[in-house]
Amino acid sequence: MDYVFSDKISGLKPSAIREILKFTSDPSVIPFAAGNPSAEAFPVQAIAEITNGILTENPIAALQYSVTEGYPALVDALKTLCKSRYGIGGETDELIVTSGAQQGIELSCKALCNEHDTILCENPSFIGSLNSFRSYNVNLVGVEVEEDGVNIEKLEKAMQENPNAKLLYLIPNFQNPSGITMSLAKRKAVYALAKQYGILILEDNPYGELRFEGADIPSIKSMDTEGIVIYVGSFSKVLSPGLRVGYVVAPQPIVAKITVCKQGADVHTAILPQMICERFLRTVDFDAHIAGLREIYRKKSSLMLGELDKQLAGKVSYTRPQGGLFIWCTLPEGADMMGFCKTAVQRKVAVVPGNAFTAKETDPTTSFRINFSTPSDEQIVRGVGILGALAREMF
Amino acid sequence: MDYVFSDKISGLKPSAIREILKFTSDPSVIPFAAGNPSAEAFPVQAIAEITNGILTENPIAALQYSVTEGYPALVDALKTLCKSRYGIGGETDELIVTSGAQQGIELSCKALCNEHDTILCENPSFIGSLNSFRSYNVNLVGVEVEEDGVNIEKLEKAMQENPNAKLLYLIPNFQNPSGITMSLAKRKAVYALAKQYGILILEDNPYGELRFEGADIPSIKSMDTEGIVIYVGSFSKVLSPGLRVGYVVAPQPIVAKITVCKQGADVHTAILPQMICERFLRTVDFDAHIAGLREIYRKKSSLMLGELDKQLAGKVSYTRPQGGLFIWCTLPEGADMMGFCKTAVQRKVAVVPGNAFTAKETDPTTSFRINFSTPSDEQIVRGVGILGALAREMF
Repeated sequence: MDYVFSDKISGLKPSAIREILKFTSDPSVIPFAAGNPSAEAFPVQAIAEITNGILTENPIAALQYSVTEGYPALVDALKTLCKSRYGIGGETDELIVTSGAQQGIELSCKALCNEHDTILCENPSFIGSLNSFRSYNVNLVGVEVEEDGVNIEKLEKAMQENPNAKLLYLIPNFQNPSGITMSLAKRKAVYALAKQYGILILEDNPYGELRFEGADIPSIKSMDTEGIVIYVGSFSKVLSPGLRVGYVVAPQPIVAKITVCKQGADVHTAILPQMICERFLRTVDFDAHIAGLREIYRKKSSLMLGELDKQLAGKVSYTRPQGGLFIWCTLPEGADMMGFCKTAVQRKVAVVPGNAFTAKETDPTTSFRINFSTPSDEQIVRGVGILGALAREMF
Repeated sequence: MDYVFSDKISGLKPSAIREILKFTSDPSVIPFAAGNPSAEAFPVQAIAEITNGILTENPIAALQYSVTEGYPALVDALKTLCKSRYGIGGETDELIVTSGAQQGIELSCKALCNEHDTILCENPSFIGSLNSFRSYNVNLVGVEVEEDGVNIEKLEKAMQENPNAKLLYLIPNFQNPSGITMSLAKRKAVYALAKQYGILILEDNPYGELRFEGADIPSIKSMDTEGIVIYVGSFSKVLSPGLRVGYVVAPQPIVAKITVCKQGADVHTAILPQMICERFLRTVDFDAHIAGLREIYRKKSSLMLGELDKQLAGKVSYTRPQGGLFIWCTLPEGADMMGFCKTAVQRKVAVVPGNAFTAKETDPTTSFRINFSTPSDEQIVRGVGILGALAREMF
């Protein structure tokens, strides 16, 4: 039978990138293409004890239906954390727990965008969010990212040229895929422009806690006196992505619409994972835990950057992230980037071709993304060596 | 600031029914409005042991990112269960794990329906699914349900009158809210009509295992030689709704589109809950567990029906379900159903007004839904007594 799918879904094309990504499940391939937290970053013992405590003391609550807005104790704990730690959450804001940050991003799009509306985003940006937007048949317009964040002149031009733009999607800290952090000056400029042009900002901050160098920069949401910023946070990189617990802090009317959407999407986020997150925040030394994570990623990024300096300097340029999980490498102008990535995976190193992350897959790019959190130290050294040999052959 | 929401979402109106449902969180109100499994139905000890085993033996897998299609061992276990126990899943079918059946229903709608397409459904039907469909700005057309299921003549008329109907949404077993089960003859007739008119069937079966009277009737999916049935199952009523684990069995091209949608929706269903479900199926005597659940609900439904016979017979008619969680009560023609429900909740018995479940909230109905799984035995006796006294006053 020929199935006829909705316009928004039939427009989603299988990507050329899948060709490469499907090799990533092969255990003999070095996983520079992944974005998984390091296995050593999981507080396994603490989670086992916490979970055992929940299922001993409060099993029915952990197994029964719960409310769409989130496990009430977790909502309270997150409001406190956001306020005290990030300066986020005004009197007109509300917070909802979502099934990962991904759901918060998707439901923001669903609540605000009609088909053919425009979303402005950094170019490159996170493939998961871009695909989520595409699944609502939204027009994506990418704005160039520089070493201190999005190009402000080009952003204003995009706002002028796209009067039906509803959202500006940004990852200000250690952006995926570029590893770039937006400067404070640019955050202020972006906020002013969004206010001027009446566009809501969707601020995605999954990596903010993973800063291993430099000083924290206030989030755009922390400047939000006008109620124009939707902030999305996550436990995926600070505790566990498998638990699928994230949250949205946004003006109350927006959270109300997201709540209605979420009820129809999955009723509520699985309650046992929510209770694990709540008890983790309540019983574990969060600062010490985060300090441990930062140390893990500081070491891994430092190892990878050192190997890149040895193997690729002069052939390939790359970012030096102050946190997060990713480094963005750029081949010389005119280089056959897809050819480079395909040969790399044949030689057992998987990287992600840059056009996975561009607003339009046809946007020209000679970049690719590599990740230092998933591979072992030995894999980092060996994998960068393979990439270096390939670069020396090709350029 | 005035926020402008998408057409599909701004059309979702706050319901008059919420007025009544908001009292349901008051612990002094008898919860006939709920749909929660009975607390005694949860195998608390088994789940605690299973979870402890997972977090001891395989903690990283339980905490790390996983694949969108579902935890592979659970996918395999569900395929085997569906084939051997339900006769479901042909060579051209595939299975995906979803975040509750709700997500399977929502993503089926998203993948197949444009705004203003039509979904045909039983009238009344499950409010959660109807609201999910409404959130895609789909036109709902309800078809009358009789004591053996949907009226076949009216269903064919609806198919003729709605050539843009994409889906026929059905809950054949112990339907929510009516408690009605569709006969085998009608299942066959419905399948033949769907085939004739080129409409896909979305078969929702959360309650099928909870049969406490009569013989099992084959699912419509088990007759699906043409690849026109999307089947949605769930662990919510057989293990735990808080875990949010459901699944879809459908033709492979449809599951492929649902998978793309799911990736953008929540990446994957929380992995620890999936592993709990898989280990439960593998290590617990499923038949004995289900037999225990049936006994719990047989007793509770029998108690409630007995009290209804004592208190409401002659004043109010009601269904006698052979399984599931709900009884559908109908006041005399012309009765003030909303007035009855409002007075009931003032007297501390919450029931759900029937127009919560109609395809259009303005469809006339004098019915309301009551539930026997959530209240205690004492609450059942006391609550039905209060409803009986109210009925005697009003009619």
